[in-house]
Amino acid sequence: MPLIQLSEVSKYPEKEVSLKGWVFNVRSSGSIYFLQFRDGSGRIQAVISKKEVDSKTWQACGKLTMESSIELFGTVHEDKRSAYGFELEVKDLKIIQLAEEYPIAKKEHGPEFLMDNRHLWLRSARQAAILKVRDEVVWQLRKFFRERGFVLTDSPVLTPTSCEGTTTLFSTDYFDTKAYLAQTGQLYIEATAAALGRVYDFGPTFRAEKSKTRRHLTEFWMLDAEAAFVDFEENLKIQEELVSQVVQNILIERREELKLLERDTKILEKVAVPFPRLTYDEAVTRLIKAGLKMKRGDDFGGDEETVLSKQFDKPVFITHFPTKIKAFYMKPDPADPELSLGDDLLAPEGFGEIIGGSERIDDLKLLEKRLKEFKLPRKDFEWYLDLRRYGSFPHSGFGLGLERLVRWICGLEHIRETIPFPRLINRLKP
Amino acid sequence: MPLIQLSEVSKYPEKEVSLKGWVFNVRSSGSIYFLQFRDGSGRIQAVISKKEVDSKTWQACGKLTMESSIELFGTVHEDKRSAYGFELEVKDLKIIQLAEEYPIAKKEHGPEFLMDNRHLWLRSARQAAILKVRDEVVWQLRKFFRERGFVLTDSPVLTPTSCEGTTTLFSTDYFDTKAYLAQTGQLYIEATAAALGRVYDFGPTFRAEKSKTRRHLTEFWMLDAEAAFVDFEENLKIQEELVSQVVQNILIERREELKLLERDTKILEKVAVPFPRLTYDEAVTRLIKAGLKMKRGDDFGGDEETVLSKQFDKPVFITHFPTKIKAFYMKPDPADPELSLGDDLLAPEGFGEIIGGSERIDDLKLLEKRLKEFKLPRKDFEWYLDLRRYGSFPHSGFGLGLERLVRWICGLEHIRETIPFPRLINRLKP
Repeated sequence: MPLIQLSEVSKYPEKEVSLKGWVFNVRSSGSIYFLQFRDGSGRIQAVISKKEVDSKTWQACGKLTMESSIELFGTVHEDKRSAYGFELEVKDLKIIQLAEEYPIAKKEHGPEFLMDNRHLWLRSARQAAILKVRDEVVWQLRKFFRERGFVLTDSPVLTPTSCEGTTTLFSTDYFDTKAYLAQTGQLYIEATAAALGRVYDFGPTFRAEKSKTRRHLTEFWMLDAEAAFVDFEENLKIQEELVSQVVQNILIERREELKLLERDTKILEKVAVPFPRLTYDEAVTRLIKAGLKMKRGDDFGGDEETVLSKQFDKPVFITHFPTKIKAFYMKPDPADPELSLGDDLLAPEGFGEIIGGSERIDDLKLLEKRLKEFKLPRKDFEWYLDLRRYGSFPHSGFGLGLERLVRWICGLEHIRETIPFPRLINRLKP
Repeated sequence: MPLIQLSEVSKYPEKEVSLKGWVFNVRSSGSIYFLQFRDGSGRIQAVISKKEVDSKTWQACGKLTMESSIELFGTVHEDKRSAYGFELEVKDLKIIQLAEEYPIAKKEHGPEFLMDNRHLWLRSARQAAILKVRDEVVWQLRKFFRERGFVLTDSPVLTPTSCEGTTTLFSTDYFDTKAYLAQTGQLYIEATAAALGRVYDFGPTFRAEKSKTRRHLTEFWMLDAEAAFVDFEENLKIQEELVSQVVQNILIERREELKLLERDTKILEKVAVPFPRLTYDEAVTRLIKAGLKMKRGDDFGGDEETVLSKQFDKPVFITHFPTKIKAFYMKPDPADPELSLGDDLLAPEGFGEIIGGSERIDDLKLLEKRLKEFKLPRKDFEWYLDLRRYGSFPHSGFGLGLERLVRWICGLEHIRETIPFPRLINRLKP
């Protein structure tokens, strides 16, 4: 009798199999027990008839508690009425461990309780589904870049300086000096782009942000991409093709999970290129019209992003922000140097920013001037300036926040559910 | 005239194309310039004949310096004599930027100089080849787990406690408390294994190790895998199948790069399952015989690994280490509880450890006892103990060090070349 995974149960109709996993519900109707059973790869209903099993097995069923680990032996039957498509007719059952009273019952729990028990909460069908979407999103992102000849070049977490100021950085003693946990790998992959042409990195990044929002984690995964000889316009194309391809493939590969999450997939189906574009100027006009109190020149926060992104059913680019509210390395628009050749890509339905990108300054003199204007310590950026001294090259890139993308695709209220063990201002455990 | 990438040059024989990239060498023979040109995706020789180009282009060639960025226009010719297989007959050339005198000349540089200029050194054919192998190794590792139904569940870097003591941990202020940078995600993926059955994580981990060796980085990428209902024996099988599959696929996908690195691929071709196995006891006998000063009960260091791994031309498992020199969570062998159901996998040719794995303790009482013996703070591990309270399950897993695997596959003397921006005790820059 083969020990199988439920993910492959469809290969065993009318066959005898064994399964190892956990009971997530038990119901009895006198002479029959209905066990809801999961093994991590899938779920099934297991049916135990008093007349089909020996008394030892029948007694064991009476003891089963939620989340007990068991081994089942029985016959797989197709069952069109079941949500799982199959049912197991049990011949024998072995208890591996009887669980103590499981803390997560069916009643409503507050988010803090669930987060304190994150290590157990992950077993719920909903949380497991989100993790499976996340896994697939990561794979699809990497696949996109591989297919287009981008080489993965991981950038370091431990860095000697920050590229956007140190106020929101975590720091650590590094032997006789100090290191900061990187917020982005962009500067580093600009160097690898000069070596390999098209590159990306994808790893955890850190922001010691004091704000509590539904969009921010202190530790989150970021994908940075950088391409040599790619301009602002082509950079936007790569971004929209990336996002639409990933979303369309998730709709195919994770349809079941999105259904379980009750995600409205009709909106996701519309996510095809090209994406609409607004300039910063046009966006501000819309925001003022929508009643937001802001003036031209202000940066956007969560509220602005929400309002704008609710006006679209596809992701929307906001381009040409004022250079002074954007990072020092963004290339100014030759047509109006007060504006930068950069973009934010906002997910629709109010979800907000998922990507930030730009063409980078490739002129040595201008970059030196910008470092000065931003009061950044020149000596820490000498290596970065080298990229403009030795065969400077027009190049563009962007950073994509994995958890924000997953949040939007899954349609989640809060970003904390998009990562196995979220880190927030008040949350470092478990 | 299409702008192409050199990776696709074979599609354009006898066609006119344009290329953007960098000159890595110029040679002149009076009426002809030979440019060695790279665009990140490949390399080619470009030939400029005085009689075929206008005087402006000819003069531009005279100015070219190493690493200058240029655009070339010309015709692709197949050339069997060339190492690249193709040659470009140049019609026109545009200088994008003339590079200042490039610091990395052809003469020998010391490692510290090259590491100070790591952002430029990466452009060398050798360093770029290593990065391309690394990229492919990462892809093949992820592909292996995907094909076998393992779900990626990233574990956190910021953690409230350490599982193996705090002396080699980096720490950071985390708002009102303290966080440590994780050395492993294992404990976390034991929790996700209970949710999803088979899981892995893959991200940077950190070790504030004061030692200088050719095998250690302070920041390195680790893949942890964990599988529910998998025992010690099956765990070894997964490890050997993983390593042999990855190595065999690298031999196919990165043959050119391995050739450039002058890697002896005959040895890698032998890396097929099953791998030889030694118990700790057998290994110690071999070490003593080889003249090492050690006694039974001592842990292995770099020297021991080197000696053992030189005795094999395939990776070799060392199993059944004494429980007291291994981590608290390793399951004791029921046949002899002084020994653990764990393994180290050593790469051959003297490269040493690439994987450490074990079956985990699934008995609550025993795990509580071990925490006490290791003087670990019980309250910090309550969540981990929960995994033994609520449906405890036999499970096993392992951790693989990416850079060590890449070092072995590429046959490198020092681990610092296996990661774009290495972090070592005396090295945090660039």
